[in-house]
Amino acid sequence: MSILVVGSIGLDNIETPFGKVENILGGSAIHFSYSASFFSPVKVVGVVGNDFPKKHLEELGKKNVDLKGIEIKKGKTFQWTGSYDYDLNQAHTLDTQLNVFEDFNPKLPSEYRNSNFIFLANMDPELQLKVLEQVESPNLVVGDTMNFWIENKKDALLKTLKKVDIILMNDSEARELCKTYSLLEAAQSILKLGPSTVIIKKGEHGALMFTDSTHFAAPAYPLEEVNDPTGAGDSFAGGFLGYLAQTKDLSEINIRKAVVFGSVMASYNVENFGPRRLQNLALSEVDKRYKEFVGITRF
Amino acid sequence: MSILVVGSIGLDNIETPFGKVENILGGSAIHFSYSASFFSPVKVVGVVGNDFPKKHLEELGKKNVDLKGIEIKKGKTFQWTGSYDYDLNQAHTLDTQLNVFEDFNPKLPSEYRNSNFIFLANMDPELQLKVLEQVESPNLVVGDTMNFWIENKKDALLKTLKKVDIILMNDSEARELCKTYSLLEAAQSILKLGPSTVIIKKGEHGALMFTDSTHFAAPAYPLEEVNDPTGAGDSFAGGFLGYLAQTKDLSEINIRKAVVFGSVMASYNVENFGPRRLQNLALSEVDKRYKEFVGITRF
Repeated sequence: MSILVVGSIGLDNIETPFGKVENILGGSAIHFSYSASFFSPVKVVGVVGNDFPKKHLEELGKKNVDLKGIEIKKGKTFQWTGSYDYDLNQAHTLDTQLNVFEDFNPKLPSEYRNSNFIFLANMDPELQLKVLEQVESPNLVVGDTMNFWIENKKDALLKTLKKVDIILMNDSEARELCKTYSLLEAAQSILKLGPSTVIIKKGEHGALMFTDSTHFAAPAYPLEEVNDPTGAGDSFAGGFLGYLAQTKDLSEINIRKAVVFGSVMASYNVENFGPRRLQNLALSEVDKRYKEFVGITRF
Repeated sequence: MSILVVGSIGLDNIETPFGKVENILGGSAIHFSYSASFFSPVKVVGVVGNDFPKKHLEELGKKNVDLKGIEIKKGKTFQWTGSYDYDLNQAHTLDTQLNVFEDFNPKLPSEYRNSNFIFLANMDPELQLKVLEQVESPNLVVGDTMNFWIENKKDALLKTLKKVDIILMNDSEARELCKTYSLLEAAQSILKLGPSTVIIKKGEHGALMFTDSTHFAAPAYPLEEVNDPTGAGDSFAGGFLGYLAQTKDLSEINIRKAVVFGSVMASYNVENFGPRRLQNLALSEVDKRYKEFVGITRF
């Protein structure tokens, strides 16, 4: 079953302790799409400038990804410039040029409106609400956000949360939103705001999943090679929602498996800059690492 | 099968965001003993001053703990004063009064010398070596250390590591010893120094276990109540080695189970100040939380 994703598409400048790249393909919708396409067809809604290299769309189009919802607008493509220290959990934004993304007003092609699996990537929660107004009756809405919206658009974010089934957040975002250090307390508060499932991503420390009555602790994968954490969260979301759309099984135990597939995709994403690793990943590698996750957690 | 532990016994002053206590029973040998005694008999070697309240020894003696190896020396008992911020992973030492612990020279009672399971708690690695010179042919030697010895007694520490089967370290200590951010790289380096198993404790993020050919990621337990992390590492060691001594099974899969029992004991330890929670813990609670660990990790 196909997935609709609405999010950013950009050209990133990234510096980590392991290297530096300029104008590399990036954006939440990109990392999500490359990741989710291993599991399910993906339809993308986003915007790029007329400077955006055509080859990027051509390459993405060769995957399981429908690009009809990508608007090409006169102007420059969204650009993010950021760096990471050795503590790769924390991105430092050096510059953000919204460019054509500034006036982004997501319009869903009519054939996207009956999408059953929706991913609202991190963006202005008002835009996330506009997307939800255009879809008919989705089976599952998964959302992401960031500290900027918690600090600057909290009311809109709370409205979005009411309409989201599963919310993905970083640990620091969950703590900030709920003003508590305890992730358990934070998750319990967020569950009261609307979502039936909260997934807290802890970077190299894995992820936690909470529902009203259960919780699940997904391990970190101890990586030999980490080069660039950019897009790890969106790759996580792609593996997570991709697996759910593929299996069409929203039971708690299957959502746990989806968290592990999300972790698998994120663990590959960080091995190279931008989406390079996912562009060159084989499906057999996805299965292989999933089995490794099984192996490292059994006791 | 009984365990020999050699380590500190002290009176701590502790301040955390959740409260403040003075002259509370503490020290690595104390937290370890309370924890391990749920699984196996424990023999303690340590030193206290003649100011040390007798009730502490009386209470400990009611557990499965032999105190013959505790020397009472003229002078004041070891005292640690420390505090924690909301990031409870990081202790801030405000003051250390070694007192009678300064000249501690561990002497094993003759009936301790044939001990099969040894825990060398965090202390000067030269003292750890002195302990090993006095034991006959132990089945298993588990060691702990800290950044102070890495920085100030590295040669002695490397000698100790050669004689230790399983080394326990915090993530920051492993990174410091091996001068790498990657815990996987750090573990691989430490395995070359002697131990056949390396366990890296990550506080609220769980623990990782590495051998030459396998690794295991133990989850964190999402605690509702955290009051004082002091002694969490030693409680972990107590549950870990206690379970191994009880089962006498040093297979890789059983060492994984031991890591989880260590995590169980650490998760209880932090619920109250000093060793209070372990002093009032029921064996049934240990089993209950172990089952919860099983539940939160299955997928």
